[in-house]
Amino acid sequence: MLSTAVLFVSSCKNMFVVRSHFHKYNVNNCASLSEALKQIELTRSHVLIDGVFAKYYASELNGVIDPSRAVFLEACEEAKSMERLPPVILDLIHRGLLRSGNLVVIGGGVLQDIGCFIASVLARGVRWEYIPTTLLAQADSCIGSKSSINLGPFKNQIGTFHAPHRVFLVSSVLQSLARDEIRSGFGEIFKLQILKGEADFQELCQDLHGLNPPFPSSLLEKWCLRSLSVKKTYIEADEYDCGVRNLLNYGHTFGHAFETSTHYAIPHGIAVLLGVVAATFVSVRRGLVSQEHYLDLKNQLAPWYYPFQENLKRVRSETVLEAMKRDKKSTSNGVSCILTRGFGKMEKVKLDFQIELLPAIIKFLHEEI
Amino acid sequence: MLSTAVLFVSSCKNMFVVRSHFHKYNVNNCASLSEALKQIELTRSHVLIDGVFAKYYASELNGVIDPSRAVFLEACEEAKSMERLPPVILDLIHRGLLRSGNLVVIGGGVLQDIGCFIASVLARGVRWEYIPTTLLAQADSCIGSKSSINLGPFKNQIGTFHAPHRVFLVSSVLQSLARDEIRSGFGEIFKLQILKGEADFQELCQDLHGLNPPFPSSLLEKWCLRSLSVKKTYIEADEYDCGVRNLLNYGHTFGHAFETSTHYAIPHGIAVLLGVVAATFVSVRRGLVSQEHYLDLKNQLAPWYYPFQENLKRVRSETVLEAMKRDKKSTSNGVSCILTRGFGKMEKVKLDFQIELLPAIIKFLHEEI
Repeated sequence: MLSTAVLFVSSCKNMFVVRSHFHKYNVNNCASLSEALKQIELTRSHVLIDGVFAKYYASELNGVIDPSRAVFLEACEEAKSMERLPPVILDLIHRGLLRSGNLVVIGGGVLQDIGCFIASVLARGVRWEYIPTTLLAQADSCIGSKSSINLGPFKNQIGTFHAPHRVFLVSSVLQSLARDEIRSGFGEIFKLQILKGEADFQELCQDLHGLNPPFPSSLLEKWCLRSLSVKKTYIEADEYDCGVRNLLNYGHTFGHAFETSTHYAIPHGIAVLLGVVAATFVSVRRGLVSQEHYLDLKNQLAPWYYPFQENLKRVRSETVLEAMKRDKKSTSNGVSCILTRGFGKMEKVKLDFQIELLPAIIKFLHEEI
Repeated sequence: MLSTAVLFVSSCKNMFVVRSHFHKYNVNNCASLSEALKQIELTRSHVLIDGVFAKYYASELNGVIDPSRAVFLEACEEAKSMERLPPVILDLIHRGLLRSGNLVVIGGGVLQDIGCFIASVLARGVRWEYIPTTLLAQADSCIGSKSSINLGPFKNQIGTFHAPHRVFLVSSVLQSLARDEIRSGFGEIFKLQILKGEADFQELCQDLHGLNPPFPSSLLEKWCLRSLSVKKTYIEADEYDCGVRNLLNYGHTFGHAFETSTHYAIPHGIAVLLGVVAATFVSVRRGLVSQEHYLDLKNQLAPWYYPFQENLKRVRSETVLEAMKRDKKSTSNGVSCILTRGFGKMEKVKLDFQIELLPAIIKFLHEEI
């Protein structure tokens, strides 16, 4: 609980430093969007911003962000595709973004992916700074250097590593998020706390017990910080995702397949929660973990993915399997997946598509959720 | 001369190791294309190959490269654009290229740029190996980790760093190159030897004196190795091009503008030679180097860019200036350029577009070449 005390500050304050292979960078906590923007040299920067967010916060942005140096984007899954990037990059170049420039990205995970990727390939790398505006981005994706871009039917098949120079967390912007966006953010928060251990997971469940969105800012700030501190240990140990960082993918191989096979009807973090339950279900079938652990987890998480399991139930098992075959971790006969032996005990397992995955998916979709 | 002795080998032999931030990699010399291909696990690789080269060497490639694992590309400047990459990457994915795969790139600089870029962004990085098939690629571009991709009207605006895992030089394939491709290759060889120093440059001029293409393989091998050894010192000292590696750009700021403003009528290495002469001309105007040095250099290099200066003379000076403004090193009022104080004495100078560059370009195009 000590760590949350530093969060109640009136302006911007450094919360922690991430040690990346690229450079160390600060994650700052700011009382308001205006305070965060004051920290940035906007006259020498270009801005890539979620168009809907920009409209919502127009009163704070007008006169602060120069529209001639800003590109407004729709934050949809289709926007983060390789096919749609060239005009966005050309727009930024025409507005004067140079190798020596600074790209300020304001938005959720889609904007982060697009901004990080552009910053990594434009002139072989320009500086970028990030103001995440969703709970999912504030609690999880804003650190770690990864960009993920879709290509044709392949989700996140294209990407780079490129660390931001600074991250500014503004918890007040989370108050304007829709209920499902908050639940989606808690999807990744749950996953990170399950990775951390049983005590942390139970503390999270207790903190949330009986509450419904909108949640108090202090609660969101607490679990953003706690989640980022879990993620920080993984990415500092293995930024390039060659070893231990793989474990952060718990729930993601299934989750991504659930997202694509429902045409993104399920928000990312909620698909990850369903993926966590699916991976735990497969872990039971493998004899890695007890049925009790699976049922406990499912009972605790069900209110958070409800009613989105209905979208999934309508999908054919073969469609989910096909989506898993397009995962970038797939080989010709199977895919690597993070399974579990219990809280804090994850391991990477190669699952055969036909022998193991298809029967498990059929049972999971028809009987388990 | 000692170094050339090791080149006469019957199969593949390691010539030297490049120490990259990514990993160390070997540059090997192979007696034939078949010998190079024998070193590669082709059944576990995918191949990206210049379609024209593949036709020319069909007898050596048939039965060795599996067409179902190969993508054939036209090696034109338009092909290395961000807009044209998605179908190429999708083709490779549909043929089964995975994160754990190996991409074998066979071709000149355009294929290298495309292959290196794809390898760097597909699944956040796959392994790649390279068989350069032009003199320019064998003598210069094959080491150094850079990829350069065009975007709209902007040449090389997009790119990444991603070292190959192995490079295989096959000097015998150079015998099939057109005369202008050989001259283009010598463009970068001249530049590298001018950077090395006067003795090396004069030795190169003596070796070439009175000769015309086709040159003996031993001569091409000698100067490939000598040029790569110059480049190796720069890239090992500054792989990410933040300092001393900038000097390798001698001739390139002008050269790229000459290429784009003539719509690529001038091959890259020949444009670089013209750029070397232009940068030296500007160095004289700045008082950095003597008129004698400039005239000596121009006299020695003129036969190598003849008759391509005629293409350049037909271009308006303003068109060249506009092309320089689109250089990724440009700022709003000028561009960084590598100037010279003599052999082996290069320095980076910021040149103002209107005050310094436009008058220099006008005089250079109308009176100097």
